[in-house]
Amino acid sequence: MSMTEELQEIEEAKTKYSKVNLNALTPLNFLKRSELVFPHKKAVVYGDKYWSWQEFAERVYRVAHGFKGMGINRLDRIALWSRNNNAMLESMYGVGMAGAVTVPLNYRLAASEIAYVLDHSGSKAIIYERIYADAIRRIQPKLKTTKIFIEIDSPDKKEVQPFGIQYEEFLSKAPCDPMDVPDVDENDMLSICYTSGTTGKPKGCVHTHRGTYLNAVGGIIEAQLTSNSSYLWTLPMFHSQGWNYVWAVTTVGAKHVCLDAIVADQIHALISRENVTILCGAPTVFTMLTDYMKKNCMQFPHTVRGLIGGAPPSPKVIMDAESIGLDIHQVYGLTEVHGPNTVCEWHCGEWDKLSLAKRARLKALQGVPYATSAPVRVVDDNMNDIPWDGETRGEIVMRGNNVMQWYFREHDKTEEAFKGGWFHSGDGAVIHPDGYIEIVDRLKDLINTGGEKVSSVEVENVIAEMPHILDVAVIGKPDEKWGEIVKAIVSIVPEEQVTGEQIIQYCRNHLAGFKIPREIEFAEITRTSTGKVQKNVLKKREIEAAKQRQSKAKE
Amino acid sequence: MSMTEELQEIEEAKTKYSKVNLNALTPLNFLKRSELVFPHKKAVVYGDKYWSWQEFAERVYRVAHGFKGMGINRLDRIALWSRNNNAMLESMYGVGMAGAVTVPLNYRLAASEIAYVLDHSGSKAIIYERIYADAIRRIQPKLKTTKIFIEIDSPDKKEVQPFGIQYEEFLSKAPCDPMDVPDVDENDMLSICYTSGTTGKPKGCVHTHRGTYLNAVGGIIEAQLTSNSSYLWTLPMFHSQGWNYVWAVTTVGAKHVCLDAIVADQIHALISRENVTILCGAPTVFTMLTDYMKKNCMQFPHTVRGLIGGAPPSPKVIMDAESIGLDIHQVYGLTEVHGPNTVCEWHCGEWDKLSLAKRARLKALQGVPYATSAPVRVVDDNMNDIPWDGETRGEIVMRGNNVMQWYFREHDKTEEAFKGGWFHSGDGAVIHPDGYIEIVDRLKDLINTGGEKVSSVEVENVIAEMPHILDVAVIGKPDEKWGEIVKAIVSIVPEEQVTGEQIIQYCRNHLAGFKIPREIEFAEITRTSTGKVQKNVLKKREIEAAKQRQSKAKE
Repeated sequence: MSMTEELQEIEEAKTKYSKVNLNALTPLNFLKRSELVFPHKKAVVYGDKYWSWQEFAERVYRVAHGFKGMGINRLDRIALWSRNNNAMLESMYGVGMAGAVTVPLNYRLAASEIAYVLDHSGSKAIIYERIYADAIRRIQPKLKTTKIFIEIDSPDKKEVQPFGIQYEEFLSKAPCDPMDVPDVDENDMLSICYTSGTTGKPKGCVHTHRGTYLNAVGGIIEAQLTSNSSYLWTLPMFHSQGWNYVWAVTTVGAKHVCLDAIVADQIHALISRENVTILCGAPTVFTMLTDYMKKNCMQFPHTVRGLIGGAPPSPKVIMDAESIGLDIHQVYGLTEVHGPNTVCEWHCGEWDKLSLAKRARLKALQGVPYATSAPVRVVDDNMNDIPWDGETRGEIVMRGNNVMQWYFREHDKTEEAFKGGWFHSGDGAVIHPDGYIEIVDRLKDLINTGGEKVSSVEVENVIAEMPHILDVAVIGKPDEKWGEIVKAIVSIVPEEQVTGEQIIQYCRNHLAGFKIPREIEFAEITRTSTGKVQKNVLKKREIEAAKQRQSKAKE
Repeated sequence: MSMTEELQEIEEAKTKYSKVNLNALTPLNFLKRSELVFPHKKAVVYGDKYWSWQEFAERVYRVAHGFKGMGINRLDRIALWSRNNNAMLESMYGVGMAGAVTVPLNYRLAASEIAYVLDHSGSKAIIYERIYADAIRRIQPKLKTTKIFIEIDSPDKKEVQPFGIQYEEFLSKAPCDPMDVPDVDENDMLSICYTSGTTGKPKGCVHTHRGTYLNAVGGIIEAQLTSNSSYLWTLPMFHSQGWNYVWAVTTVGAKHVCLDAIVADQIHALISRENVTILCGAPTVFTMLTDYMKKNCMQFPHTVRGLIGGAPPSPKVIMDAESIGLDIHQVYGLTEVHGPNTVCEWHCGEWDKLSLAKRARLKALQGVPYATSAPVRVVDDNMNDIPWDGETRGEIVMRGNNVMQWYFREHDKTEEAFKGGWFHSGDGAVIHPDGYIEIVDRLKDLINTGGEKVSSVEVENVIAEMPHILDVAVIGKPDEKWGEIVKAIVSIVPEEQVTGEQIIQYCRNHLAGFKIPREIEFAEITRTSTGKVQKNVLKKREIEAAKQRQSKAKE
């Protein structure tokens, strides 16, 4: 037999027995496994209700059977508009088990934006919490494809009138017969997660079964999840499929502790009651929780792992959170890459010995790729890798199984995001000599003052270190002489006082001259549900104001 | 746009951007990641030598460059015949980085069997430890495809004359330039692991990049590996790629502690010196270690996780191992399914409260599929699932990503093993009412005595409970009246005494009448490198003896 024949035989064997030795990677298998292994173990908690894995699985099967009975087919989209609760979780699994695709909606979007996403995704059905029923009532007549309305009862806003099919009725009418995981292609979509649309219309990041499976497995490894873990849902489930912890928690048979509002005393109580071992969230969640605990002189009874993501936390936020008993780890990613793709991987032996301040500084790095992620690069405008000097700035780009399939039915936007064969994050970063990535800014948020580039994040981190600072956002304000000047918007802890002069003085001690804010504004800072400051909105306001000043000057 | 066009667009998007959003699952990426994240952390230990991840990676690149320089191409096979040491580990990575395929050889095979595997796999090169040089010298002239011989220096058998290219010289002549992971198809083969050939010629189980990646990730989750883990190589690396811990340990940047011989005092010393957290092995490894520790009244300074696999351990073995500070977990699989596929998943809250004896009984179950494994079934002759009654026997069958691609170039044997679309393990098992699988016997080892089926494992477990029993094997001995009778071969702890009458009396108290051995033989029991008793050999001996008796009777 010649070499060529041999190679041909080897090549043919790759598919010859694929019925036996290849099956689709899909996180839906994780439910089947936990139902088998831990049928009577607590799976889901919401309020004072509990469901075992068997009970949870039965409700999931009801959702799937229910939709199939309504004519929902493979790859049909079903939108979900709810805060974190058991029904939201059941729906994410149930829609998947029906072979369909979830469209989890950011619950802070306006009704008109919700309508846009429903039409754009072509969703045939929507499951929503009753608190949104009035909005649904308003947009319903104009929706193009959404014809099925299923409403989850809510503990809040009891005055809102019900609308549509009641979720519990929908479940009770459907059989609870166990189902096999549908026969999917692992590259089929499982979810379309729309970006919050800070720059233009929301875009639908297509998450596949394969991508979600691999990111969930990566999340288990990085968070060291086991069947003993208890996961508190401080992160919205809609946000990049709850960064895939919707799936990862189930994989190992850990416990989902649902929480529908970020209220510090509830979080504190649930951590004790449910023996919570891990929670995730944007920096704001941790700031709020830290403030509450400190004010009440409280500490957690056991160490709780806290994964910070969604926006880069300042070392101050990390230091404060660690002081109340949280073990903070930062993860970095975007909805476009199925959630987190890098983690500040900790060097125990070496780094544990450092002071809290130094540890916090290290934990504020975005770090290195997940063990299951493809390489992440930081490149210059010509796609060349930047030097590892901690100074040269480039853009973070990614490739591989974690990258979304495409922006749903937006080829132009997809091609722009994928230019050069890599997904462009839009995040500006440096690489330190040890290979750890640190975000310096969103590229478009870099301030250009007299030709010098200033990282708004750097200035924010310095101001955040001062006592009594609640939040801070730094932007470039249009300036005739300098192009832009550094402007800080600062909000102070209630009943405390900090002057602009004090802030500038503090910055003078910690920053180069050109980085010091020329202007300080005291105001509340609005953040998106993912903890991001909409700097483009703040900047636009400054530009408008500048225009008005100019036209007034002309008058 | 019609529904069909929409679905077509969705279908096309699955591959349209695959350059950006799909990359091959290959465990080779794990090395690149640990080199990046932990360059100066201890990666590999052998004897009194240490290599950091960067040093290890450089040696791997040398192996790969070296082979490429010798004309080794994609999918070429390279055999490895060595005990566990750093060179064996480097070779497994280096061959992969060259795009080639390892053929790790069972080092207990006879030279003629090694020659068979080299020819059958078409290996172009072999890397072997010097202790095997004389055997290589003998078989070399007859080998069909193996033309490159690379020899690893050995601390043992210093009298053996070197032969072939010296490994360290091979490395020093090759560049250490970093390499990218080769551009593989995830369904390409990475390794061909030959079965030990207890029933006929060895068969080559083809392990793919994808299968190995997924099994390694599963192994991390089940063993709760982290960067703090220290893995002691008591399991041969050749055995199903060291059950994929060759890869899994690297994934998380844990430490490989190599060990070239199973010697109890060395194991004990290394566990302390290298702060070992986990080791794997066949039951015999644990029995040997337990005996040594007990005899010397020793305990481990910290809890060490012990994964038992390769053969079902008796509850007695588990109980003894736990008493010296090992936390035992059983995993079950075969080389045909990339190693372990089930684990006795522990129910902490519930089962931790039980007595040691009851816990040991539970830990002796083969359990449930890995979180990353496809379903495992137990079926009757018609491929129907058996009832979960803990009594009905069936055969364990498996399917999915963990199943080997094929028996290398053996289509008939592959089709036989894959009949009905599932891989047939040949292991007979029951399923308990909680869904946990328990192996009762290799199907062919079930004893048929007067129409009653006796599980040899059950009888072995009872005898193993008696004091002073070192090892036991139970087989069916041909018998004119009963078809077969139950025969036990027993080996006793040196300097202790146990009589056949005592054994039979003990069995009478614990087993049904037809299961009690009719014959006891005191003899040493030979086990394969994977801890299995070759019952077919023992049975054959009995058949021969019976024939001789018959012919003598005729004379």
